Amino acid sequence: MKNCQNIIERIYSDLKDIKDDGKVANYIPELGTISPNNFGAHITTAKKESFGIGDYDKKFSIQSISKILSLTLAYHLEGENLWKRVDVEPSGNAFNSLQQLDDDCGIPRNPFINAGAIVICDVLVTHLENPKDDFLKFCREIANNQTLEYCKKVAASERETGYRNFALCNFIKSFGNIKNDVEDVLDFYFHICALEMSCKELSEIFLYLTEDVKITYKEKEILNKNEAKRINAIMLTCGFYDEAGEFAFKVGLPGKSGVGGGIIAVQPNEYCIAVWSPKLNKKGNSYKGMLFLEEFTTATTSSIF
Amino acid sequence: MKNCQNIIERIYSDLKDIKDDGKVANYIPELGTISPNNFGAHITTAKKESFGIGDYDKKFSIQSISKILSLTLAYHLEGENLWKRVDVEPSGNAFNSLQQLDDDCGIPRNPFINAGAIVICDVLVTHLENPKDDFLKFCREIANNQTLEYCKKVAASERETGYRNFALCNFIKSFGNIKNDVEDVLDFYFHICALEMSCKELSEIFLYLTEDVKITYKEKEILNKNEAKRINAIMLTCGFYDEAGEFAFKVGLPGKSGVGGGIIAVQPNEYCIAVWSPKLNKKGNSYKGMLFLEEFTTATTSSIF
Amino acid sequence: MKNCQNIIERIYSDLKDIKDDGKVANYIPELGTISPNNFGAHITTAKKESFGIGDYDKKFSIQSISKILSLTLAYHLEGENLWKRVDVEPSGNAFNSLQQLDDDCGIPRNPFINAGAIVICDVLVTHLENPKDDFLKFCREIANNQTLEYCKKVAASERETGYRNFALCNFIKSFGNIKNDVEDVLDFYFHICALEMSCKELSEIFLYLTEDVKITYKEKEILNKNEAKRINAIMLTCGFYDEAGEFAFKVGLPGKSGVGGGIIAVQPNEYCIAVWSPKLNKKGNSYKGMLFLEEFTTATTSSIF
Amino acid sequence: MKNCQNIIERIYSDLKDIKDDGKVANYIPELGTISPNNFGAHITTAKKESFGIGDYDKKFSIQSISKILSLTLAYHLEGENLWKRVDVEPSGNAFNSLQQLDDDCGIPRNPFINAGAIVICDVLVTHLENPKDDFLKFCREIANNQTLEYCKKVAASERETGYRNFALCNFIKSFGNIKNDVEDVLDFYFHICALEMSCKELSEIFLYLTEDVKITYKEKEILNKNEAKRINAIMLTCGFYDEAGEFAFKVGLPGKSGVGGGIIAVQPNEYCIAVWSPKLNKKGNSYKGMLFLEEFTTATTSSIF
Repeated sequence: MKNCQNIIERIYSDLKDIKDDGKVANYIPELGTISPNNFGAHITTAKKESFGIGDYDKKFSIQSISKILSLTLAYHLEGENLWKRVDVEPSGNAFNSLQQLDDDCGIPRNPFINAGAIVICDVLVTHLENPKDDFLKFCREIANNQTLEYCKKVAASERETGYRNFALCNFIKSFGNIKNDVEDVLDFYFHICALEMSCKELSEIFLYLTEDVKITYKEKEILNKNEAKRINAIMLTCGFYDEAGEFAFKVGLPGKSGVGGGIIAVQPNEYCIAVWSPKLNKKGNSYKGMLFLEEFTTATTSSIF
Repeated sequence: MKNCQNIIERIYSDLKDIKDDGKVANYIPELGTISPNNFGAHITTAKKESFGIGDYDKKFSIQSISKILSLTLAYHLEGENLWKRVDVEPSGNAFNSLQQLDDDCGIPRNPFINAGAIVICDVLVTHLENPKDDFLKFCREIANNQTLEYCKKVAASERETGYRNFALCNFIKSFGNIKNDVEDVLDFYFHICALEMSCKELSEIFLYLTEDVKITYKEKEILNKNEAKRINAIMLTCGFYDEAGEFAFKVGLPGKSGVGGGIIAVQPNEYCIAVWSPKLNKKGNSYKGMLFLEEFTTATTSSIF
Repeated sequence: MKNCQNIIERIYSDLKDIKDDGKVANYIPELGTISPNNFGAHITTAKKESFGIGDYDKKFSIQSISKILSLTLAYHLEGENLWKRVDVEPSGNAFNSLQQLDDDCGIPRNPFINAGAIVICDVLVTHLENPKDDFLKFCREIANNQTLEYCKKVAASERETGYRNFALCNFIKSFGNIKNDVEDVLDFYFHICALEMSCKELSEIFLYLTEDVKITYKEKEILNKNEAKRINAIMLTCGFYDEAGEFAFKVGLPGKSGVGGGIIAVQPNEYCIAVWSPKLNKKGNSYKGMLFLEEFTTATTSSIF
Repeated sequence: MKNCQNIIERIYSDLKDIKDDGKVANYIPELGTISPNNFGAHITTAKKESFGIGDYDKKFSIQSISKILSLTLAYHLEGENLWKRVDVEPSGNAFNSLQQLDDDCGIPRNPFINAGAIVICDVLVTHLENPKDDFLKFCREIANNQTLEYCKKVAASERETGYRNFALCNFIKSFGNIKNDVEDVLDFYFHICALEMSCKELSEIFLYLTEDVKITYKEKEILNKNEAKRINAIMLTCGFYDEAGEFAFKVGLPGKSGVGGGIIAVQPNEYCIAVWSPKLNKKGNSYKGMLFLEEFTTATTSSIF
């Protein structure tokens, strides 16, 4: 990508010191201890070019971004049957809503709201012998990176305060759409949310969502072309809770945010980009991260629209 | 586009006689009189190639597809201020929901649900001297097609049974987000819904949403590149009511459906496609139309994801 | 009633000068012009004793209290069939909610929320030749009081700002549960809300809801004993919007409030009491009125529980 | 009460063999094993007269009727502070709804929906040393009846399938309105629901809700007159889920139903009545029980309205 390093340097210096009204997430106490000044971004292209700026090499809690990885593995293992358990529609509600589950008989609207991600975890708990270990191995293999780890402290912190997720999981189980023990499913869920990666690592691990990059897991392609497109489509329509439309409107790429302040976005023909800045806007997405991506797709005219 | 004619001929013959459990919309009595057997499609490329099949040249009631046209004109006239009056988020609810307006203080979730389209009409009633005439002139000019007309019968039929739209418009006015008379706004709204076009005409009029095609209105470009991308983004996230995710997932193009059985979709770098088949699935989108587009983007590998 | 005059004098002087955080309703502009200092109460017993205090003889806009009168006449004319058009359940929502109508197919939860009262008006428009005149005659006859009048100014003021009621009425009509023209139904509705009475007149007109008092209309008993009990039951469960439980809990009588600051309550074996103080609490009920009634039933141990 | 025995004999024989479209609750598997033909009623008056008919002496699972007993003990121990933890408003929703808790920040609408009853259990778990034992002692003491017992099988059955209650309890805990361990609170909750009594015992134990009957617990009056009235008021407005209005309308007494098919109702000046018939109507209340009570208050003209 031409001038990519120049572009991200300019955007980085534009945004580095702007007033940021966002707030670091503190509903998971352990996340509240992160310095709000962290700010970095990294691009990896389908052709393996690499561009980084700021704290691009520092690991952080990727939180909900990991929902793409768990969805990918579940889709790989379960195929199209997966969509009987979870829908692919934007929810029009906050990320942890219980409201719609009642009308929808326990079928979550999409795999990126908490309800849906918990159902995906249930699918994986059924498939995997040692869910936490096996999932970590999967991530390490597709990223070709043995340093990936869960942060046990964050997982424990989330478990201790995760009453709403316990509510969601029990509620879905009351409709029969959770097959395993609530404790097992959520223990797994809290761990995958506590996965730690740097922007650089994030922009590398999601290359399988760009065309022409083939990644295998246990010698089988993770997702075929059509499946990868579908994941991208769900990211576009559902990746940012009730700010999905805004992100499509301003950034114009499939993406997914986490309350740790990370955002990953995919240009299907060209590159993956990850940004990180811990302060979140009111909708729970990284304030500076959103701005960075908006400026980046404008500067590179790489929106999919 | 290579083989395009062959591809649409094959898809057309594949689908022509399949069992179609959909139903022709009859809540607007006049729409209920259309033969369910109509079936056609037409592609116009950014390079002005043209491919049609079946009833591609027959005019029908484009209904909600006209919401793209009214949004375009309102955006052209009002600029970014427009988004203070209407949001760009998927609603997660049916197309005629009143539920969310209450929580959102009368700001509709997006311009493609009825609530939002009515607010857009209000914006246009404020801007235009003779709303119905001026809007028709706008459509004729950008389509370069003087034959475009409203169907007065459909407009009258919709007006007579449009209590829910009267409810919506009064409800939004109670929040101050309708500035003109309810009667004037809805008279305009019912007319633009009653616009008639063929698949061929639809695939031509929306070319301004593909890159590199410049269309002017009163000698000014209708939308700049960024604005066109934004319309595409809203179509992708909100164009199919509560089936928007499914459409992105299966078809992978920005699009918009109407209860007349028409669907328009845009491949931003290449083409517009319009399909028409009056029987609607449970979510209110053309049953065969959805299938046609799914097969078409698969065969041409032209999903944006 | 023993000591009744002493009791109301004591309560009146207790409450007259307390801090009142309530606010005079101003969503109907004409109501906003009333002095917030008005404060009065009046009791009329089944044995025709009469006790008044403060501004008990001053007329004010009775607003939703008139919904008991319209319900009474509709029940008188329509009998048990009436309950096919409107339910008798507390709504658990604000008085002007549209939310539940959707789930309930246009059947309002009860006749005291706006939606239900509008359906009652529709029933009366069907039955009465000149709805506004005939209803006024009905009120005058059962009250034996020819001075009762609508306040035209308030009716006009409500009509001009009544978009939410237009929304409700059109919405219900979209389900087929309004049979007449929306304009006719609401013109009638706005007038009956604009009926003016004093506390004294209110405590007299509702005596038909106490046992052993027989009132006739056109020479027929308005309601039989069972029917009167049923109106009382609906008042108890639904008379105070989302504060019905609180009123039952603290006051313990069937009652009905209006945004003009009036409240009427009925002790079925003994008396009617009306209070008036224009400042409303957050739930839309008279702040001082609620306190007055609470102290009154405590002092007289006349709660029905 | 004059003729009481005759009256209940007549009603019993009227209703015994009518077509009953209701269904025995089976969502708690153990409840599904009860014979649907059980049918009985019992009245105990404030003056200790006693009238029974049918299966009035057979014990059954009183289920939600026990929520009056737990509320009573919590009110006794906590006083008016209790109402900071739970409101007294009808919910307008089904008995196990999660919807409103979100809007209301974890404060349940009333103590008779599941959410509220669970909060009441939490209050008792805080106050009582051995919640299950102490609560049973309380019931035995106020009923002067040492035979009262939990059915361990029903409690276990409810625990195994109680995912929705686990969802509710965790959800409320996420708002901070549950202070103890979810497991402890629900273990207690499932046990008190599994309390077994006969109609006779039920009509005796609730005599403390009639005026002039004084019952003590550990030598202190359980509730004073005002407090008893308040419990009656909540029963009237909230005792029958989304059929509370209907019950007030038709029966006209404070009451409470349970999914075991029991209903208790209180005439505050005169008597308690309990009926039992396991088949439930669509709203979850005993079909025959409702009819029995309607006929009974009509025959005895003892509605409070």
